[in-house]
Amino acid sequence: MTPTLLAEIVDRAIAEDLASGDVTTRLTVPEGRRSAADLVARTACVFAGGEVFRKVFERIDPGVVVRDLVADGTRLVAGQVAAQIEGSSRSVLAAERTALNFVQRLSGVATLTARFVAAIPQGSKTRIADTRKTTPGLRGLERAAVRAGGGANHRDDLGGGVLIKDNHIVAVGSVGDAVRRARAGAPHGLKVEVEVTSMAELDEALAAGADAVLLDNMDDDAVRAAARKIAGKALVEVSGGITIDRVPVLAAAGVDVVSVGALTHSAPAVDLALDFRS
Amino acid sequence: MTPTLLAEIVDRAIAEDLASGDVTTRLTVPEGRRSAADLVARTACVFAGGEVFRKVFERIDPGVVVRDLVADGTRLVAGQVAAQIEGSSRSVLAAERTALNFVQRLSGVATLTARFVAAIPQGSKTRIADTRKTTPGLRGLERAAVRAGGGANHRDDLGGGVLIKDNHIVAVGSVGDAVRRARAGAPHGLKVEVEVTSMAELDEALAAGADAVLLDNMDDDAVRAAARKIAGKALVEVSGGITIDRVPVLAAAGVDVVSVGALTHSAPAVDLALDFRS
Amino acid sequence: MTPTLLAEIVDRAIAEDLASGDVTTRLTVPEGRRSAADLVARTACVFAGGEVFRKVFERIDPGVVVRDLVADGTRLVAGQVAAQIEGSSRSVLAAERTALNFVQRLSGVATLTARFVAAIPQGSKTRIADTRKTTPGLRGLERAAVRAGGGANHRDDLGGGVLIKDNHIVAVGSVGDAVRRARAGAPHGLKVEVEVTSMAELDEALAAGADAVLLDNMDDDAVRAAARKIAGKALVEVSGGITIDRVPVLAAAGVDVVSVGALTHSAPAVDLALDFRS
Amino acid sequence: MTPTLLAEIVDRAIAEDLASGDVTTRLTVPEGRRSAADLVARTACVFAGGEVFRKVFERIDPGVVVRDLVADGTRLVAGQVAAQIEGSSRSVLAAERTALNFVQRLSGVATLTARFVAAIPQGSKTRIADTRKTTPGLRGLERAAVRAGGGANHRDDLGGGVLIKDNHIVAVGSVGDAVRRARAGAPHGLKVEVEVTSMAELDEALAAGADAVLLDNMDDDAVRAAARKIAGKALVEVSGGITIDRVPVLAAAGVDVVSVGALTHSAPAVDLALDFRS
Amino acid sequence: MTPTLLAEIVDRAIAEDLASGDVTTRLTVPEGRRSAADLVARTACVFAGGEVFRKVFERIDPGVVVRDLVADGTRLVAGQVAAQIEGSSRSVLAAERTALNFVQRLSGVATLTARFVAAIPQGSKTRIADTRKTTPGLRGLERAAVRAGGGANHRDDLGGGVLIKDNHIVAVGSVGDAVRRARAGAPHGLKVEVEVTSMAELDEALAAGADAVLLDNMDDDAVRAAARKIAGKALVEVSGGITIDRVPVLAAAGVDVVSVGALTHSAPAVDLALDFRS
Amino acid sequence: MTPTLLAEIVDRAIAEDLASGDVTTRLTVPEGRRSAADLVARTACVFAGGEVFRKVFERIDPGVVVRDLVADGTRLVAGQVAAQIEGSSRSVLAAERTALNFVQRLSGVATLTARFVAAIPQGSKTRIADTRKTTPGLRGLERAAVRAGGGANHRDDLGGGVLIKDNHIVAVGSVGDAVRRARAGAPHGLKVEVEVTSMAELDEALAAGADAVLLDNMDDDAVRAAARKIAGKALVEVSGGITIDRVPVLAAAGVDVVSVGALTHSAPAVDLALDFRS
Repeated sequence: MTPTLLAEIVDRAIAEDLASGDVTTRLTVPEGRRSAADLVARTACVFAGGEVFRKVFERIDPGVVVRDLVADGTRLVAGQVAAQIEGSSRSVLAAERTALNFVQRLSGVATLTARFVAAIPQGSKTRIADTRKTTPGLRGLERAAVRAGGGANHRDDLGGGVLIKDNHIVAVGSVGDAVRRARAGAPHGLKVEVEVTSMAELDEALAAGADAVLLDNMDDDAVRAAARKIAGKALVEVSGGITIDRVPVLAAAGVDVVSVGALTHSAPAVDLALDFRS
Repeated sequence: MTPTLLAEIVDRAIAEDLASGDVTTRLTVPEGRRSAADLVARTACVFAGGEVFRKVFERIDPGVVVRDLVADGTRLVAGQVAAQIEGSSRSVLAAERTALNFVQRLSGVATLTARFVAAIPQGSKTRIADTRKTTPGLRGLERAAVRAGGGANHRDDLGGGVLIKDNHIVAVGSVGDAVRRARAGAPHGLKVEVEVTSMAELDEALAAGADAVLLDNMDDDAVRAAARKIAGKALVEVSGGITIDRVPVLAAAGVDVVSVGALTHSAPAVDLALDFRS
Repeated sequence: MTPTLLAEIVDRAIAEDLASGDVTTRLTVPEGRRSAADLVARTACVFAGGEVFRKVFERIDPGVVVRDLVADGTRLVAGQVAAQIEGSSRSVLAAERTALNFVQRLSGVATLTARFVAAIPQGSKTRIADTRKTTPGLRGLERAAVRAGGGANHRDDLGGGVLIKDNHIVAVGSVGDAVRRARAGAPHGLKVEVEVTSMAELDEALAAGADAVLLDNMDDDAVRAAARKIAGKALVEVSGGITIDRVPVLAAAGVDVVSVGALTHSAPAVDLALDFRS
Repeated sequence: MTPTLLAEIVDRAIAEDLASGDVTTRLTVPEGRRSAADLVARTACVFAGGEVFRKVFERIDPGVVVRDLVADGTRLVAGQVAAQIEGSSRSVLAAERTALNFVQRLSGVATLTARFVAAIPQGSKTRIADTRKTTPGLRGLERAAVRAGGGANHRDDLGGGVLIKDNHIVAVGSVGDAVRRARAGAPHGLKVEVEVTSMAELDEALAAGADAVLLDNMDDDAVRAAARKIAGKALVEVSGGITIDRVPVLAAAGVDVVSVGALTHSAPAVDLALDFRS
Repeated sequence: MTPTLLAEIVDRAIAEDLASGDVTTRLTVPEGRRSAADLVARTACVFAGGEVFRKVFERIDPGVVVRDLVADGTRLVAGQVAAQIEGSSRSVLAAERTALNFVQRLSGVATLTARFVAAIPQGSKTRIADTRKTTPGLRGLERAAVRAGGGANHRDDLGGGVLIKDNHIVAVGSVGDAVRRARAGAPHGLKVEVEVTSMAELDEALAAGADAVLLDNMDDDAVRAAARKIAGKALVEVSGGITIDRVPVLAAAGVDVVSVGALTHSAPAVDLALDFRS
Repeated sequence: MTPTLLAEIVDRAIAEDLASGDVTTRLTVPEGRRSAADLVARTACVFAGGEVFRKVFERIDPGVVVRDLVADGTRLVAGQVAAQIEGSSRSVLAAERTALNFVQRLSGVATLTARFVAAIPQGSKTRIADTRKTTPGLRGLERAAVRAGGGANHRDDLGGGVLIKDNHIVAVGSVGDAVRRARAGAPHGLKVEVEVTSMAELDEALAAGADAVLLDNMDDDAVRAAARKIAGKALVEVSGGITIDRVPVLAAAGVDVVSVGALTHSAPAVDLALDFRS
């Protein structure tokens, strides 16, 4: 993410909290006062969002210093300090909540992703990937948090890949037709992927020359059967109803990509707090 | 929220997904084709986000019609249709994911809030309130989702209330000093609230004339003792480590406001989907 | 105000004047030329707007230096230098008018506020406050200018306070009803204030439990009578038709807040100019 | 002004007041309620800002209707209704203050301009013009308000005219040099104007071929002498220390343009209010 | 392109021309006057940009009607009318130049593309594609103009494809290394393409498993030799120094994609004008 | 152009290319790697756009250094290095295409302008000027490129000059009427120019007191005849169908300004490339 795009996201978040000023801080904390604070993980987690955390302070007051910030992807134990902040007390107090809101959410994404990734058997080619089910306005940051947790990214947006889904097929009429149209016109750098929900659709997809198939909401047996039929002729992605304990099963079945919406839409926040030392 | 602010939030979300076009739809779905689709709840939930859902379609194509949209706060059973969408297939497909991303998250907030609210005993004055731990960029929408779930809103931003927190007190020196400064200068329409973590701090807060106290991370016994001491001299808010089964206990102790960060930072998404009928 | 919000206000003002360049300066002043200039008060005033003044130069050319800038709230005598500017002649000339437009207006607000504040008797608790009758786009800056002049700020926006006004009462039906509804649902950190225009409405407001009353357009006798009836049961604000000589009378009557729209909507500009020394 | 630029100005003003919602109205006024209101002039004035007034309501709620809006430039007597507003009570209350803030200021500009214009003798060619001393963010609207009051507009921005001022001359070295440089490079559609403060500078300006001269801060005798010397060889503008009673004197002296900064920087607001009928 | 993104591009262009108003039109054309005008092609061309042309009028004045607008991709002969415009004379005059600036440029792109496409032999699989050498700010519109001319689009942006170019190879060290890294981590929907400038690099690319190769600045013989060696193992793209008469030669050599920067960076504008009938 | 406006143009261009990241570079180039590169002119040209070129790198990564950048207006021979770039390989690769897209287009404008300017005979007063036929979104940059090539700028926008064109005349009724209206109301710093297409219209323009006339689409004989008739009573501009070899003829005829739309709408891009040295 470019500095400008990052700054825009941060500025909007700041505006939500600070557009009409921080009346409490202005009234209680004298102007020249300076503080030092620690960013502390209250529970074990995989950290993510360091860059945006730093940017919040920088946009509110370039004089605030964020030091010893751990890298995204760092595993923290409960009580561990992830960064040290120093500067004008007023500025740090004004930035605190916004900075934490980013980092608690993104670390939540990274932590959940890491749990899924840990379930992949050693040596397996299977990847855990995110989806487009991201938080409106935060896609780029959440994509990076997934990578911090060891996951892979799916196409970034609707222009970054050809993926024919169930509703396309309803609108077009058949899997085969849809795949053939896509192959005829797709930009030459994009593979053509199609979502299938049955063996019949899978046959149609393979016959039409799909480069990849997305097995949607199939149980383990169905996935195994489909993977056997595909037999390397196309890349295999599985999605829908994925739990962590299914991951080794799917990996064993030869699935290339397991994509999990929950990584970004339902990861609980990690408890990260700012403790003032002075 | 004004139409303009809502449109900006929607446009940013659309841009994340559609800035480089929807290559799949352009290639597979003919331009004149029209579709009809249902917004379906896959699990029981309290619905929220109807206005922003409708706005996504409107911003992408004013010709798409969203009909029979249930009101925010409606309780849906699994399989229930929450809205019907009709229009250009290309437009509906382009809007689908963005519209769902909003509504699945906001309905998640409303649903979790409703579970907390249901735990308040009949006739109790206690309110469940949100906090400033909201998703960056979505605060206003999440505030409304909390209300849809029956919750109350805390101050909207740092300008909308005086709340002296732990880190202010570190920076200022003492609870009493902080409260006195705030009372001297606060805009005349705002009460002065202060966070306390011990009985000693509570004494100081009351002596300095705080209008409200926030009991932070206290267990049930401590809350009861504090509430007895306050005895109506100030409004009582409790926060930190709140679970649903503590709600009746806190209500019985006479707490006015139970504020819960998880309502907005850790509510799992509700599974809402778009099913094309044609 | 955060640096970002300040920069946006400044950039819009600059764009109004400079979007199509400064043709005069480009034609007449050679590129490498440097100038030194004084910001001079042509008449006595209370200075305000120093930060935005400095920002105009910084946004046009970070190489321009603004030195010895007096603090907001400084009383200047005619002829006094409020700042010294040094840098590229082209940049200083391009910034001059925009920078002055801010500071002459904001110093006007501070100067008029100071005249009202000076009329408060020693030892009185009465405050002079601004209103929401601010210049569109400049509210935050004008709020700060009022403080620089010794005034207090009213709620910053419609989300930062509950104030039931005449037109609400027409829409709702009665003062009592409106106050009761507001008390039932108001965020717990906000007081409930209501505007009244008669003794009957005042009775209704007090009976319904208003935390504060705004006496609108009442003459001195009416204010005195109302204040006697209120007798500390609610905070007393007075507004409408306020002149400087009424201030001591209102203070003596025990009014808490005198709010004056003219501070921001009708303050004449202060004559501040830039004098090039080279 | 294009609809887009106007909408941006309005949206920023609305955001200042409504970004965190209108808590009073939401709590007190039921959602379906409708109101009718009059825009009333409390004192005699020349009306301006009708378009932006209407736009505020439209941006908050396109369902609000503004009817019988008088044209800009209309002279209103005290008590006269300038427009009728009808729609959702909540929307009208949310828009009220922002809409009035625009119209009270712009009508103030038009009213003051009209007083200056009225002082021009019948049949005189002299014009009253505004300057670049406008309110940051509102230049286009104030320019239109000046026209509504019968005044003329000066160059709109630094790209729309060549006007060499005192500080340019300090930076360049001499009036003559500055005028010669400007004439050599000026876009062929622009005249070259130069500010002079003495007869010597005037001689230099005329010798160098200035198309127009701005007599800065000269008293009536000096203006008369200068005008005689110019004798039609250049256009004559006068600025600085202009009061209404000097206008006929300056007109008699043959001045073409009298430019008055106060029109936009010090016009007191006109008292325009919204009276709800229901 | 979504309506919002299109509107932003149009609004910026309008602002460049109209931010300080249209002084000529305001002075000369009475306010109520209405005009009818034809959009006329002065020379033969392939038309493109119809949607943005219409949008310019709509953003300036929704009351202006654009009728009988030909579809993008239509071949026009000299003198042919491409659209009819009717509405307020002032609005049409204000919009004229901006609307034409878009359409003359985009039709230029479509027309040049069509000339390249016409050179592809019947039945050939070869495509003419654009590049990322587009006009800053207009990429989406130019991509659509290329399609209107019968061309294909390359990846839309740096996130929409993996294309390893010469400078990547310098930074990484070797073609083989770069391809292997890309294959290991590329999102599963993207092919891996690499630019090669010699047979040795081509061997390396094929050995590393590139899905596509871009033959950069090779002459016809070199292209033929490379295509023979590739022999269907990878997709073949050719770029650099492409002229229209090389197209059939490259097609005969079995090239899949001929990408031409000039389509967007050097297409001369088409002469399209607005002729007022009244 | 102010730094802010320049940054906005650059940020939009960057967003077009980088909004979804640079997947190729992220995958292939290690994070710490640094590169040095030359900006090289592949063909002889007049360079323009240096400031915006530098800004692209700065906005993507302030750590990238651009050194030895030649001044706008410098004549480069084929193979000449115009700047040296050094910094993070990832940043330079991300910025490369966007930076080049600006500079190849702007240098194209400067180069074409210089060819026209070179055709003006020594000692002639004739100027080559641009028009409003600029690329939407890039007007300010293109105006500067024209100056870099030795050309003059026309009015910058519709507010920066009075130019009555053919379509105004259709809407108003006659050349004379239009000129008279314009003269009556034009801001005193603007000349009144009118486009004429015949000797009759020219007579009318001169009679009405036009300050300048634009001879539209007249051949050399007609221009000579018109110039003789004008005889210094108005400034003479010629436009429409201008080729380089007509320039000396028009200069000899006494034309003041030759305005050429092609300078900005049809200048072919100059081949400027970035060559990585490491």
